[in-house]
Amino acid sequence: MAIRIGIIGHGNLGHGAEIAVGKNPDMELAGIFTRREPEKVTPLTKGVKVYGIDDAAKFKDLIDVMILCGGSATDLPKQTPVFARMFNVVDSFDTHAMIPEHFEAVDQAAKEGGKVGIISLGWDPGLFSLNRLYANSVLPNGKDYTFWGKGISQGHSDALRRIAGVKDARQYTIPVQSAMDAVRSGSEPELTTREKHLRECFVVAEEGADKARIEHDIVTMPNYFSDYDTTVHFISEAELKRDHSAIPHGGFVIRTGKTGMHDETKHMIEFSLKLGSNPEFTGSVLAAMARAAYKLYQDGQRGCKTIFDIPPAYLSAKSPEELRKHYL
Amino acid sequence: MAIRIGIIGHGNLGHGAEIAVGKNPDMELAGIFTRREPEKVTPLTKGVKVYGIDDAAKFKDLIDVMILCGGSATDLPKQTPVFARMFNVVDSFDTHAMIPEHFEAVDQAAKEGGKVGIISLGWDPGLFSLNRLYANSVLPNGKDYTFWGKGISQGHSDALRRIAGVKDARQYTIPVQSAMDAVRSGSEPELTTREKHLRECFVVAEEGADKARIEHDIVTMPNYFSDYDTTVHFISEAELKRDHSAIPHGGFVIRTGKTGMHDETKHMIEFSLKLGSNPEFTGSVLAAMARAAYKLYQDGQRGCKTIFDIPPAYLSAKSPEELRKHYL
Repeated sequence: MAIRIGIIGHGNLGHGAEIAVGKNPDMELAGIFTRREPEKVTPLTKGVKVYGIDDAAKFKDLIDVMILCGGSATDLPKQTPVFARMFNVVDSFDTHAMIPEHFEAVDQAAKEGGKVGIISLGWDPGLFSLNRLYANSVLPNGKDYTFWGKGISQGHSDALRRIAGVKDARQYTIPVQSAMDAVRSGSEPELTTREKHLRECFVVAEEGADKARIEHDIVTMPNYFSDYDTTVHFISEAELKRDHSAIPHGGFVIRTGKTGMHDETKHMIEFSLKLGSNPEFTGSVLAAMARAAYKLYQDGQRGCKTIFDIPPAYLSAKSPEELRKHYL
Repeated sequence: MAIRIGIIGHGNLGHGAEIAVGKNPDMELAGIFTRREPEKVTPLTKGVKVYGIDDAAKFKDLIDVMILCGGSATDLPKQTPVFARMFNVVDSFDTHAMIPEHFEAVDQAAKEGGKVGIISLGWDPGLFSLNRLYANSVLPNGKDYTFWGKGISQGHSDALRRIAGVKDARQYTIPVQSAMDAVRSGSEPELTTREKHLRECFVVAEEGADKARIEHDIVTMPNYFSDYDTTVHFISEAELKRDHSAIPHGGFVIRTGKTGMHDETKHMIEFSLKLGSNPEFTGSVLAAMARAAYKLYQDGQRGCKTIFDIPPAYLSAKSPEELRKHYL
């Protein structure tokens, strides 16, 4: 019997999860749940039904795992604990500083509901975290580096759009090649924020707006841009739509470390992603982890987990024998 | 209390494991066990005792995990099941085709002895296998590529040394850059053996040996060299010692895949290693996995496992709270 999946939220990430569920033959999509009016939401997949989010509770016995596709700022801190009382859940909560708090809330809810919740999935947190953990465990004497990009930062693009006179905008985070080369040399450099990433902005200005003032507002914006070398390009709305509609992202996790009786031997472990679509990839991770949540639940496990707690084989639809034979 | 580790075998890999145990403050090295005369084996670490392998059984209650550092051809198929009856064990068994058989033998022994055995650890099989599994689970629609090198192939170096007139030799396996570029483009190329790797040989010929005949014997050798573009350099013994004494290795695991309703979105997941010393790195993986074996045993788990079965957090000395806070 297929794993019955529900999806809550049908924005970019919800679309990505919907597509991913469709690519996994051992899963079936039992329904999409939305805060909007259900009849105004069109699933990508033929035959899939859309329900109001308040009807989700009625599906308690009809859905094995609920994939939560809301945002980390306001949706998931509330939604994940609520739904973890009723369903096995997976989410992509990515506010790093708040993870311990979110973990506790989901853990309590999932234990009370007798369910499994796996939080903070995707690529960072997610696959990047995994690689940091494995690399640190294998090379305890070393140094970690994470570079993001080249890719669209949603938060920085939003910050641009809040500036007066900006009609629309996209911001690319770009790792600095010379910094990556220095890291890969094994010299364990100390790198400042400015040395690691560039920020490149494509801005559509409103008619008659003062572009020099907009550019100044951007490059001096604290937290977002002032600590970086930032370039600003003014383009037309048509150009933005034509050249910057995709949501690519990616990045690099590198650990360099030393072994040998006198630390004389250098090693490098590197993991990288180049993603055509951030939400489609994140949705794909959520789908694989929904399978893991289902297996953990079948095993009798309860409460909140992270990717660190999941035996890798649980992500796969293949049998342990097949994995040992063909993937080891 | 520290995890008490024993090491069986004190060749290159045993040295690597010994160094790695010393880098992990939560472990102590309880003894090295050898088939040679113990007084002829000198540990790298001050104060560590060396015993004959036949005395290992006496340490049943004094060692938490035994790291097996023998070879895959003849040592491990016998040793791992024998010692899995007495100890929690980890090994680096790397004969891919024989893994299912080895798994069964170790599983039976470990279950009878009430112990945990984790087999086929290192980087391939090992960290490379992990990355194949995660990448396949996240991107079910895609294609896998593994490239090895640049690094010393022990098996191919041995093959060179068996040729008449060869005094000593080293063989480097080198991935072909254009093949890696083609893979990274996402075009999912079909690559022949010859297209993926080059083989470069450094040979010390015996005095008066026919170098042209040696070179011919090398490049036409079936299985080892005839399917590859192979280059042969004749060098002096001093040059071999000076330039080719290290045992570097590494490689790349790449999966490219597609998402989107019409497979229109491309993604790439890449993992790579650049290792100054193959045995020191493999020893470091074994040490981290010895910790995992200890934790699994404490959990009450028994029998044979592979890296696919181990929750990633089990490799780390850090607490779950610390991992969630700093590594997620």
